[in-house]
Amino acid sequence: MKHKASPNGVSSRAKVLTIDTMNPTVKKVEYAVRGPIVQRAMELEKELSEGMKKPFAEVIKANIGDAHAMGQQPITFFRQVLALCSYPELLNDSTFPEDAKSRARRILQSCGGNSMGSYSASQGIDSVRHDVARYIKRRDDGVPCDPDNIYLTTGASDGIVTMLKLLVCGEGATRTGIMISIPQYPLYSAALAELGAVQINYYLNEQKCWSLDISELQRSLDEARQHCNPRALCIINPGNPTGQVQSRQCIEDVIRFAAKERLFLMADEVYQDNVYAEGCQFHSFKKVLFEMGPEYSNTVELVSFHSTSKCYMGECGFRGGYMEIINLDSEVKAQLTKLVSVRLCPPVPGQALMDLVVNPPQPGEPSHEKFIKERTTTLCALAEKAKLTEQVLNTVQGISCNPVQGAMYSFPCITIPEKAIKEDNGQKPDMFYCMKLLEETGICLVPGSGFGQRDGTYHFRMTILPPKDKLKILLTKVKEFHQKFTQQYS
Amino acid sequence: MKHKASPNGVSSRAKVLTIDTMNPTVKKVEYAVRGPIVQRAMELEKELSEGMKKPFAEVIKANIGDAHAMGQQPITFFRQVLALCSYPELLNDSTFPEDAKSRARRILQSCGGNSMGSYSASQGIDSVRHDVARYIKRRDDGVPCDPDNIYLTTGASDGIVTMLKLLVCGEGATRTGIMISIPQYPLYSAALAELGAVQINYYLNEQKCWSLDISELQRSLDEARQHCNPRALCIINPGNPTGQVQSRQCIEDVIRFAAKERLFLMADEVYQDNVYAEGCQFHSFKKVLFEMGPEYSNTVELVSFHSTSKCYMGECGFRGGYMEIINLDSEVKAQLTKLVSVRLCPPVPGQALMDLVVNPPQPGEPSHEKFIKERTTTLCALAEKAKLTEQVLNTVQGISCNPVQGAMYSFPCITIPEKAIKEDNGQKPDMFYCMKLLEETGICLVPGSGFGQRDGTYHFRMTILPPKDKLKILLTKVKEFHQKFTQQYS
Ligand SMILES: Cc1ncc(COP(=O)(O)O)c(C=O)c1O
Ligand SMILES: Cc1ncc(COP(=O)(O)O)c(C=O)c1O
Repeated sequence: MKHKASPNGVSSRAKVLTIDTMNPTVKKVEYAVRGPIVQRAMELEKELSEGMKKPFAEVIKANIGDAHAMGQQPITFFRQVLALCSYPELLNDSTFPEDAKSRARRILQSCGGNSMGSYSASQGIDSVRHDVARYIKRRDDGVPCDPDNIYLTTGASDGIVTMLKLLVCGEGATRTGIMISIPQYPLYSAALAELGAVQINYYLNEQKCWSLDISELQRSLDEARQHCNPRALCIINPGNPTGQVQSRQCIEDVIRFAAKERLFLMADEVYQDNVYAEGCQFHSFKKVLFEMGPEYSNTVELVSFHSTSKCYMGECGFRGGYMEIINLDSEVKAQLTKLVSVRLCPPVPGQALMDLVVNPPQPGEPSHEKFIKERTTTLCALAEKAKLTEQVLNTVQGISCNPVQGAMYSFPCITIPEKAIKEDNGQKPDMFYCMKLLEETGICLVPGSGFGQRDGTYHFRMTILPPKDKLKILLTKVKEFHQKFTQQYS
Repeated sequence: MKHKASPNGVSSRAKVLTIDTMNPTVKKVEYAVRGPIVQRAMELEKELSEGMKKPFAEVIKANIGDAHAMGQQPITFFRQVLALCSYPELLNDSTFPEDAKSRARRILQSCGGNSMGSYSASQGIDSVRHDVARYIKRRDDGVPCDPDNIYLTTGASDGIVTMLKLLVCGEGATRTGIMISIPQYPLYSAALAELGAVQINYYLNEQKCWSLDISELQRSLDEARQHCNPRALCIINPGNPTGQVQSRQCIEDVIRFAAKERLFLMADEVYQDNVYAEGCQFHSFKKVLFEMGPEYSNTVELVSFHSTSKCYMGECGFRGGYMEIINLDSEVKAQLTKLVSVRLCPPVPGQALMDLVVNPPQPGEPSHEKFIKERTTTLCALAEKAKLTEQVLNTVQGISCNPVQGAMYSFPCITIPEKAIKEDNGQKPDMFYCMKLLEETGICLVPGSGFGQRDGTYHFRMTILPPKDKLKILLTKVKEFHQKFTQQYS
């Protein structure tokens, strides 16, 4: 037993759990969206609130896709039903619309003891899974969907990590490799680090609006095959952090590639309703797969993820989500069901919310009109802000920005002067840039290095979520900062 | 690329992900509480509802600690506040009590954009963590509690798995070993299997009311040291599945043992309000640790888990919980914060509920009286059912049952005749027993083998949660079944 004397003379044992003796895979995890820059932003907010003087009056956070935190309003119908489910006494309240009540009754009837306080089935509430299946079939113009293939999850994050977990095996040169886009959403790199899987990078084509080139997939796969066992290909569409929307052709090519190379496909489609650019449209991997005929639709293993956190809902805090698995081996499916049962079940309010998302008020129902109006307002505002962001950033010399076709982010390329790059400050150049931006303007963005970028290029990610007036301030401040920064280091 | 011909002539590729190529640690996971017996119970329910004839009219589930599913009513105040937080329009509704409203306002003010739809800080909402800290201090007669040491979680399950994850490292003879009680709650064995940690069993003393003997801890630890690196000791108090409440002396001894042997302590205290037996009292590990003086309180690493799922609340579906970490190395704590940030945050409604649990209506507030009444009613009913269960089971020859001092379960020892044990039916004898019980009576219990038991002994676990009239039926049926079973195989 090791002892060391502590300041007060009491003998203190060496800790059991130290940075040197903890799980090494956990140490490798990084997650930029909530990294040091965000911690500093929170400190600055605290300092401001304590009356400390700063060169800005408020911190504007554009670091995370958290719509309600940026003032987006929830859909009234959704919240009415959630209130009714939480406190069923309200079913007697005549001020609630009838469709909200009947929806709440239906959800409660599927809960043990008619209470959201019961554990649900581990795969999710039966009737919710059926509603999800009907939604997918509708969305995909009639392609069939089996409720048995739907798993409700604790946000999409949970589903993604669970599926990756199933895929990981082998050691050394046979260790599972997972292909992810660069730039990526850092949940993927974090989960792979934790699972000890090999991260295989394929680069999106910034010159072609962050599109996905099959030749790049092939390069990346061929190289990876030298040292690991590539088993799955992850795609985020619409893209985070890059905001692109993949074309139908591209998706077909990706599926063909996955079939040819025997890769399990993971389609992260949490932004499926966030498409703004003219000529762009969301195509689900499922639908394209089925349109390619039985040679593909009977064989290619695919999982698609959705969430209550994004789109027009933005209900991140409820941690609702689902995944649909297609062509999953039946024994593996049984293992998946067993695995999720250990955690008992996803949060029931999140499941209820997911149910409302896939089954919103229908034409003729009392809440329909208001629902459509609220949804449209939110999506139009996002579309407008997507355009505004692109336009303003592209007026800045040294910033170049692809159109924000979808999702909620812009990922512009920024020119950082050599002198700033060479500055030896222990930070990556884009981190240095973003930290300085934060300290001088109160604007919180995430450096591109947190998502991955081609060597020698620099980016930041900003969300388009702040209200329009604040977004304008933000963009102006970024513009001014960039000009000043460039001058300072030229 | 392997191809095989499918029935319809379309060539079908071999799956990428099969039972032979999936993560081997996932395959090792078992979780009895939702295992084959529960699946069969669900089938039976379906068959009954379809009009199929059975020797029973309904399935009575006593397999899982899911209070609301068994008819327990939620606390009105909690649900009122949740409804107000879900749909803040209701803050203008004069039928809601003022204390519910002010509580809701306070929670909403701590949410980004005043919405439960925002992601919270990954560690949990600030004000909730402060309320938890105040609760712990109150509970522990003034022992200080730092809100910075509180992490909100997605049910206790999430916190337990996260802490185990931090502790696991090494390979072969230096692989991390974790000590768990036998019988145990199978989340532990499942998590250890998934993490590839070594499960170290120590046996509770059934003869002494499932108490914990230090000599048995020592035996178990000494043996484990031959082949792995034991690093943590898990205790469930009050116990699941065994229903015992540890004495203060025992807890002190365990802490001394952990200090001497340099073990990280994990105290699962989710049943802290579920204490029924006279002379029994809940003692938190934290409090006992601090009463033992600085030699212990400054050194022993401890984490304690709590949940909204049990006690008088029984709000399982909300997936609320917290953990308090004590003496955790500061670098490890930073790693923990980083790790939980990858999943963004625990469900916000669950956090809100946790806040209400630790900060219920106070004397003088409008909801206080009703709250006390509801809580007392629930806890008294549980105490009564705990007694009833013990009494009835102990009248059966061949069943012997310790008092249900706390928690929500009885784990009686059952005598299974040799002939039934030797019956070659591919099932463990207690699984055979429980399956037969289910098929003949519609009663769903979990075999002791799902929790672990001394070789050659057999048990089942039953919850005391069914309403009293159903519990009586259940106990009578178990009695009759056991007599019949014993006769049949004698
Ligand atoms: C691409 C992508 N996938 C998954 C998630 C996870 O979201 P959640 O777990 O809240 O559903 C996010 C969140 O930002 C995301 O951007
Ligand atoms: C001892 C013990 N710990 C933890 C849990 C997990 O509960 P939850 O994740 O719902 O908080 C349970 C559930 O039954 C339990 O019995």
